[in-house]
Amino acid sequence: MNRRNFLIKSSLACGAVTAGLSTTNAFSLKNLNMTKNKLELSWRPYTLDLKHVFTIATSSRTTTPVMLTEIKYGDITGYGEASMPPYLGESQESVDIFLKKVNLSQFNDPTELEKILDYIDGLDIKNTAAKASVDIALHDLVGKLIGQPWYKIWGYDASKTPVTSFTIGIDTPEVVRQKVKEAEEFKVLKVKLGRDTDKEMIETIRSVTDKPLVTDVNQGWKDKHAALDMIHWLAERNVEFIEQPMPKEDVDSNAWLTENSPIPIIGDEAVQGIEDAIRAKGVYSGINIKLMKCGGMRNANKMVTIAKAFGMKVMVGCMTETSCAISAASHISPECDWADLDGALLISNDIFEGTKVINGKVTLSDLPGIGLKKI
Amino acid sequence: MNRRNFLIKSSLACGAVTAGLSTTNAFSLKNLNMTKNKLELSWRPYTLDLKHVFTIATSSRTTTPVMLTEIKYGDITGYGEASMPPYLGESQESVDIFLKKVNLSQFNDPTELEKILDYIDGLDIKNTAAKASVDIALHDLVGKLIGQPWYKIWGYDASKTPVTSFTIGIDTPEVVRQKVKEAEEFKVLKVKLGRDTDKEMIETIRSVTDKPLVTDVNQGWKDKHAALDMIHWLAERNVEFIEQPMPKEDVDSNAWLTENSPIPIIGDEAVQGIEDAIRAKGVYSGINIKLMKCGGMRNANKMVTIAKAFGMKVMVGCMTETSCAISAASHISPECDWADLDGALLISNDIFEGTKVINGKVTLSDLPGIGLKKI
Repeated sequence: MNRRNFLIKSSLACGAVTAGLSTTNAFSLKNLNMTKNKLELSWRPYTLDLKHVFTIATSSRTTTPVMLTEIKYGDITGYGEASMPPYLGESQESVDIFLKKVNLSQFNDPTELEKILDYIDGLDIKNTAAKASVDIALHDLVGKLIGQPWYKIWGYDASKTPVTSFTIGIDTPEVVRQKVKEAEEFKVLKVKLGRDTDKEMIETIRSVTDKPLVTDVNQGWKDKHAALDMIHWLAERNVEFIEQPMPKEDVDSNAWLTENSPIPIIGDEAVQGIEDAIRAKGVYSGINIKLMKCGGMRNANKMVTIAKAFGMKVMVGCMTETSCAISAASHISPECDWADLDGALLISNDIFEGTKVINGKVTLSDLPGIGLKKI
Repeated sequence: MNRRNFLIKSSLACGAVTAGLSTTNAFSLKNLNMTKNKLELSWRPYTLDLKHVFTIATSSRTTTPVMLTEIKYGDITGYGEASMPPYLGESQESVDIFLKKVNLSQFNDPTELEKILDYIDGLDIKNTAAKASVDIALHDLVGKLIGQPWYKIWGYDASKTPVTSFTIGIDTPEVVRQKVKEAEEFKVLKVKLGRDTDKEMIETIRSVTDKPLVTDVNQGWKDKHAALDMIHWLAERNVEFIEQPMPKEDVDSNAWLTENSPIPIIGDEAVQGIEDAIRAKGVYSGINIKLMKCGGMRNANKMVTIAKAFGMKVMVGCMTETSCAISAASHISPECDWADLDGALLISNDIFEGTKVINGKVTLSDLPGIGLKKI
């Protein structure tokens, strides 16, 4: 009997006894603690194969190294992932070194996420992808123990998930037109800008579709006046927002663009964790939250709370990742204005099924935890 | 068979089938939705009898009017409460008027807290106690559906709850000394200041105990220089913080005190909801979060996230309330620096048992929801 059938069968049997009540869990969770299970962390490297060569303003590549994690607690396993695009400074080696420092055996109760993740965070500075790989696996585990998907635990409405954009990398006009056609399912396309071919890219795409576009400059523009002219040009061509137009260090120019732009300016490279979300107020119209930047689901959800309290726009983004990290990120998406969760769609060797894109819309699984099945 | 025994019995039966697994809940919760239960809100007025006449800077009284709410969903009932100390502007009449506007039958899934509570919040401005009475009952219900207490759902560590202060009201020296003796169990005493008897109060208390004190001025001081002198005098007498020393409208004077005070200055009347928590940065060292001010558990927990991200101190406070609203508030207390959750201890006709004070420490129940039993 595989895991899923076992769960369904257990549920039906349990349901018959409890007449549909689901208030029994506090007791079974307590029983689970009393068995003194240990939290066991394990990990293995994996290489994602990209369907297309991926080009942004600063680099090109065909693979992405990731680390796949598991946290076992009794019979339950939580799955996690760290994704390490090379330009962000982490690697399979650095994640391995970080994870070797983690000692989860000191914790008896996995639901004490705040305490455990404070410990993880304190093990070293940075290493946010490595930290996310533990955070995600722990969330998946705890969600399974509680028996609920995280969007429900957080009180969010699964029907409110946004559509996701789909990224069209920088390429020759012919390849770009082909990619746009292949992206027919998606309601919004994301265009990587920040080269001298920016207008050509947009015009090539506009020659085959009038779908809304969103753009990501990856800090590629250097002059704020030229940038503002370009933003006006883009806004006239149904571009919804501009991500990280200028270098993150140039706070004043980014703030000036935000003040003067007719469309939202979103901070990405400038906004890593919670403290950056606070600093983003007054500099950007909104923030792009990514688990690999902020250290995982817990910080991501706090950043949603903070940004919304500030009246800022919220976007959830990703790296190239399997459906593990994508599904994890998707649980905050009902509270986000925009999603850019195409990371698992860009790879040819995914090993999970979870959150899907259906008719362009982020569509959450209602399985507990982060909602995964292994494929 | 009473409710508790039924739950325990169901749990044991269920546990036997699932061999201790608690991953079945997503399925039973789904089944519960499929039965198309309606959310049914009901309420009744109740009057709390205070053990002692309660005197603060601006008023005295012997009772507190509250409204007790219930939200039923199938066989499960969530309990809530609004407390309306008269000087805060709400009353049993205003809460009744507000609750008559609430139509929960439009919602099928009680776990969609964000959507439901946004609707409640949008029904009218202010009315934060009325809103809290729905928020608390809904949290209690959802926690019971999920089968977990809220501190676990929020990932907090029950062992990290602070001690609670116990309030010694303004009274004659003889009565004050008597109250201090009765408060032997408590590790920290809270003293209401803001009258011309302030030093006498402190000296009377110091004549019988050297326990740490915290003080609440309830906006009672009018001159910042005199206030700072008084704060220094208090700090020398082992006072840990000063709550709302000056009128909330006098932002500059409160900020000046915060900058110059040797001990933390906590905003209370100035900090009602989430937006005030943001405005408190730079004005106060910390904030006093109360469910009746901010509209309930959801906003309270967001205010914790925001204040901690700002590096501010966090205190959780209360009105005179039954153990219902006190228990609800206590679920954020593991993340708080201080608690002032003595509200249910000040009344003689509590009708719930939940979070308790044991050896002065806030002690959470591990029952699901907000952790109540009716007594």
